[in-house]
Amino acid sequence: MVYEAITAGGFGSQPFILGYIITAMISGLLFLYLPRKLDVPQKFGIIHFFIVVWSGLMYTNFLNQSFLSDYAWYMDWMVSTPLILLALGLTAFHGADTKRYDLLGALLGAEFTLVVTGLLAQAQGSITPYYVGVLLLLGVVYLLAKPFREIAEESSDGLARAYKLLAGYIGIFFLSYPTVWYISGIDALPGGLNVLDPTQTSIALVVLPFFCKQVYGFLDMYLIHKAE
Amino acid sequence: MVYEAITAGGFGSQPFILGYIITAMISGLLFLYLPRKLDVPQKFGIIHFFIVVWSGLMYTNFLNQSFLSDYAWYMDWMVSTPLILLALGLTAFHGADTKRYDLLGALLGAEFTLVVTGLLAQAQGSITPYYVGVLLLLGVVYLLAKPFREIAEESSDGLARAYKLLAGYIGIFFLSYPTVWYISGIDALPGGLNVLDPTQTSIALVVLPFFCKQVYGFLDMYLIHKAE
Amino acid sequence: MVYEAITAGGFGSQPFILGYIITAMISGLLFLYLPRKLDVPQKFGIIHFFIVVWSGLMYTNFLNQSFLSDYAWYMDWMVSTPLILLALGLTAFHGADTKRYDLLGALLGAEFTLVVTGLLAQAQGSITPYYVGVLLLLGVVYLLAKPFREIAEESSDGLARAYKLLAGYIGIFFLSYPTVWYISGIDALPGGLNVLDPTQTSIALVVLPFFCKQVYGFLDMYLIHKAE
Repeated sequence: MVYEAITAGGFGSQPFILGYIITAMISGLLFLYLPRKLDVPQKFGIIHFFIVVWSGLMYTNFLNQSFLSDYAWYMDWMVSTPLILLALGLTAFHGADTKRYDLLGALLGAEFTLVVTGLLAQAQGSITPYYVGVLLLLGVVYLLAKPFREIAEESSDGLARAYKLLAGYIGIFFLSYPTVWYISGIDALPGGLNVLDPTQTSIALVVLPFFCKQVYGFLDMYLIHKAE
Repeated sequence: MVYEAITAGGFGSQPFILGYIITAMISGLLFLYLPRKLDVPQKFGIIHFFIVVWSGLMYTNFLNQSFLSDYAWYMDWMVSTPLILLALGLTAFHGADTKRYDLLGALLGAEFTLVVTGLLAQAQGSITPYYVGVLLLLGVVYLLAKPFREIAEESSDGLARAYKLLAGYIGIFFLSYPTVWYISGIDALPGGLNVLDPTQTSIALVVLPFFCKQVYGFLDMYLIHKAE
Repeated sequence: MVYEAITAGGFGSQPFILGYIITAMISGLLFLYLPRKLDVPQKFGIIHFFIVVWSGLMYTNFLNQSFLSDYAWYMDWMVSTPLILLALGLTAFHGADTKRYDLLGALLGAEFTLVVTGLLAQAQGSITPYYVGVLLLLGVVYLLAKPFREIAEESSDGLARAYKLLAGYIGIFFLSYPTVWYISGIDALPGGLNVLDPTQTSIALVVLPFFCKQVYGFLDMYLIHKAE
């Protein structure tokens, strides 16, 4: 299974995982402090706090084996990736008159469901649910690229630019996750190609979330601050 | 357990399950397209999309065994049946001035909890949680029949009629689910009567949701369209 | 594991658990009836109903073993303790002009996440996640003691007094839970001290929730009623 594959052969990704957890917890504390400093609504600090704290906690399942260890990535992503899109959606709504909560629900629901498709693919040893997940991810990208962009453009030029930068940033990273999953050589992940060995997969799934969580939180609040 | 009972003896319900998943995915795409065509709020299309897509994904656990296979029905219903009632509640609110979100929370919470009682009854091998679930279901039926009907009647005659038709439709089907569960001959379901054999149970739990999800989505949007 | 430890040696806490479940179900029915009687908003009755019914249902996993039995406390608390804080937060908002939904989200999110840290500590056999949970609990206590108190003080003197009494009551009980967990002699709980044997732990985790759920529901609605 996943945990065994990652920890076998010296557990080469352990220092990365440790560093990921520690930076997550420190960023979490900073995210609670920054909104007052940067004059950004407190809700952004709260959302980014939970993104990194939740993710850091779930990665402890790689340091100490538990019944969640083989599915720890999904347990992280089920909560943290919808929250990442919540922060992005609220960034688009910030300063805009239109608040399309139906589209926000669609965005978060699609993200949650696509994470579950990865879990199902691994649990069933079948690639089919993964393809449904890829379609849902294309739906997420479409929502970010069209309706949410149009909402962000109602606001000031600065906020629209901030949104477009963040949406492009997250869009590219979110397309990288299923790619890593698919090209991973971990047997329990039913992707077709074996480009990354288990240790490389595990490191990639520290590096990608570090940019989507720790870095993204600072970027989001800094860009909102600068645009105002 | 459930998965073994259903797939034993030739897995007679397999074509039904396959058909269910395929029609779920096709309906999901249509539900995203129909609101614009029928001039119905997009939120209805989004809710019905997630009802069928989630349900279809959970039924893949019957095609390929996973750690969720024995509890796949509950994993489906925990998400999809509260969403069915969300669509119904929003249909009642549509055009009405009163929006009782406390009652909407009660409706969805009762539905979620009653699905969990079924899961607990199976996991514990005890019928007691099931009886609590039946009481919760009566609460759901009461909410649909009285306070939500009164809210729907504030709106136009057409919308009130649409709501009453849909609520009666869903009420009758939702009372059928625990009946099938109780009269099933699957040993893992601690109901008292053995009227349906495992294959018949499995087919019944394709036919009922087909009417509560695929058909219901079209019906809901068509009736709102016609009433307006 | 937890279930074995509790039920070993005569299962001395069984009558307590039975009494807990029965009083939970009876209180649940009363909570639905009281709001009309006491002229309190129905939403409080609904929230307290789900707190006790959910908790009672999860405690049935101690009477009949299931795959949830070893984690039944967390399955209860993940849902019921955020709802307890939802009732408390809405009590603070009741009559106040300020409704800080970002802080309400932070309060409920922190509570949910700290319950998960207990589950992770047990599942991993590591005390580290527990310490993160203690920090989150201090965050919960801070939110109750400062921003939510200030919101409650915007309202009438009576409602502010009611909130402060309830927040102090819940604050003290919520600090007792991780204390019991830490000083429990159940091997599966990685706390350092063995003050309470498994039966005593199990009884403590009936007595504490009885005051935080059954008693608290009546207290909350009675104090809102008296303050108005």
